[in-house]
Amino acid sequence: MKRGLIIVISGPAGSGKGTVVKALREKMPTLGISVSATTRNPRPGEVEGVHYFFITKEEFERRIASGEILEHTYYCDNYYGTPKSELERITAEGKDIIFEIEVNGAIQVKKLFPEAVAIMLLPPSAKLLESRLRGRGTETEEVIKQRLRRARDELKLLHHYDYLVVNGENMVDDCVELIKDIITSEHSRTSRMTDFAEKFFEDNN
Amino acid sequence: MKRGLIIVISGPAGSGKGTVVKALREKMPTLGISVSATTRNPRPGEVEGVHYFFITKEEFERRIASGEILEHTYYCDNYYGTPKSELERITAEGKDIIFEIEVNGAIQVKKLFPEAVAIMLLPPSAKLLESRLRGRGTETEEVIKQRLRRARDELKLLHHYDYLVVNGENMVDDCVELIKDIITSEHSRTSRMTDFAEKFFEDNN
Repeated sequence: MKRGLIIVISGPAGSGKGTVVKALREKMPTLGISVSATTRNPRPGEVEGVHYFFITKEEFERRIASGEILEHTYYCDNYYGTPKSELERITAEGKDIIFEIEVNGAIQVKKLFPEAVAIMLLPPSAKLLESRLRGRGTETEEVIKQRLRRARDELKLLHHYDYLVVNGENMVDDCVELIKDIITSEHSRTSRMTDFAEKFFEDNN
Repeated sequence: MKRGLIIVISGPAGSGKGTVVKALREKMPTLGISVSATTRNPRPGEVEGVHYFFITKEEFERRIASGEILEHTYYCDNYYGTPKSELERITAEGKDIIFEIEVNGAIQVKKLFPEAVAIMLLPPSAKLLESRLRGRGTETEEVIKQRLRRARDELKLLHHYDYLVVNGENMVDDCVELIKDIITSEHSRTSRMTDFAEKFFEDNN
């Protein structure tokens, strides 16, 4: 079976990546869904390996150190993260998987999975990025400036990415269509079609 | 202005590349059209640089030797070919250009223009390729065998290509859609978006 794709969507705060990934998931119901690992206790009805993999803090930290956790966050005194094995399981089933991840995390995924497709999402200009951050009305001036500085640094890492998708105002649907086109065409890359090529002459020998 | 793409579509005899490229041109009226060079005499009403570039045989052969002619054929005692300068002109205008070209010619174009997008078209299997060649009813058994041997050699060159598109029976429209997706997504490659990235912070400095 042909392996699924690992698609990494990243971009600075204000790029709209959360909205785009949510819309993408709705439009592509065949996407694989990875089960996260967590250190919090299971709630009633939660099933190991279905809702989460429940592990101890010590085990979680060991897995971070050994590279078994692809990316993680620490929230309310507990770890949440994506096991590398989940990506291998899902793509081996022939399903594509999409990750929304911050810029440095995305580069990390590309190192672990060089065949991953990394997409950077950006608004049409830094001016618009700034006005989106201000429009939220939730961040202080200092935080906004800090995020803009960070976006500037993040843009310097663009060459690690395969694609740059521009997310204009009210253009979420166009972004989603473009990313769908990218996914479709990436499946036809010659590097992913070696099985087909090998089998092509099989019945003719 | 952002440069247009050079798209090279290739594949063995029987892959259906002629039909696919014709349908693609109809669906993408904004594609650039290159003016060919020829050694035949102008017919009444034909304008130099509009219908053809009319040049002498000596000049044509000199241009082949110097690499100024990208690909050419010899037909009824005259040369017909694509000047390299035409590709540069059209892509500089921001227009994409599509070439249908045989496998070795396509590899030649990739050498001259490494940024070109090379697409190999194949039927689903060699068996089907064979039955398509037989279905034409125009080739002798010897020619069909020769073409299949050639297809086998051509498939060994697949790694020079960026994409492999499978052209199933009655699937021309799907092929065209897939190639359109490839063209759309190739425009968003980070390597082609450096201008955008450079201008991103321009008004914010």
